[in-house]
Amino acid sequence: MIKGISHLGVAVKDLEESREFYRKVFGLESSDPILGGDGTIKVSLVDTGNVLIELLQPIGNEGVMAKFLEKRGEGFHHICYEVENIAAEVDSAKSKGLEVLGEIRSGAEGKTAFLHPRDTHGVLVEFVEKEE
Amino acid sequence: MIKGISHLGVAVKDLEESREFYRKVFGLESSDPILGGDGTIKVSLVDTGNVLIELLQPIGNEGVMAKFLEKRGEGFHHICYEVENIAAEVDSAKSKGLEVLGEIRSGAEGKTAFLHPRDTHGVLVEFVEKEE
Repeated sequence: MIKGISHLGVAVKDLEESREFYRKVFGLESSDPILGGDGTIKVSLVDTGNVLIELLQPIGNEGVMAKFLEKRGEGFHHICYEVENIAAEVDSAKSKGLEVLGEIRSGAEGKTAFLHPRDTHGVLVEFVEKEE
Repeated sequence: MIKGISHLGVAVKDLEESREFYRKVFGLESSDPILGGDGTIKVSLVDTGNVLIELLQPIGNEGVMAKFLEKRGEGFHHICYEVENIAAEVDSAKSKGLEVLGEIRSGAEGKTAFLHPRDTHGVLVEFVEKEE
């Protein structure tokens, strides 16, 4: 079962410039940057009041995020739904013919998995099951 | 002041197919379609639990949404922030050099305005001030 949207991933070229933009223009604060994606991205979370915006800046020219930026430019990258039971969601998606990208992984927020955007009407979908 | 994210706009080719997808794959229900954008789009709202997803299907080949789909394909279109005072937000954005697309309009949800994605790191931003 989906509990709601946990965060929105947004690809940016320069994390500090974007953090400053959200602060200055919208009055929204963001968390100190951390490394993610096995060291291929820098991440900061903007608190909008209900849903987080995950700003994602690639490090270097390799990696998935760098390729995304090159191809699509800055903008929306993915939507993350908080789910009650990620194993059940992944099994359910597979049984409906959707491609799950890799396996369920353990991240900072909990267990996560991604669905291929080809199967989800153009929106890259992440599931997260948060740890209690 | 921004109160939170009100909805996420997502461009789709076929509204009924997408509604069925959200229902079948994610268990998320959506509202009956209505016309929007002066009759150039069909709109349905998916209830994710906290934030709405606004599915947007163009009608015909003209109009902004049809052009978006042709250029970018299905996927994220805009993010809508609920604000306390839309006139103040628009004035503030203008004073910081951001382009406001057109004027403040009255819609089904309340007063709305859009900021140009060129000025917002690739994310088309809508503000809505909801009616009490």
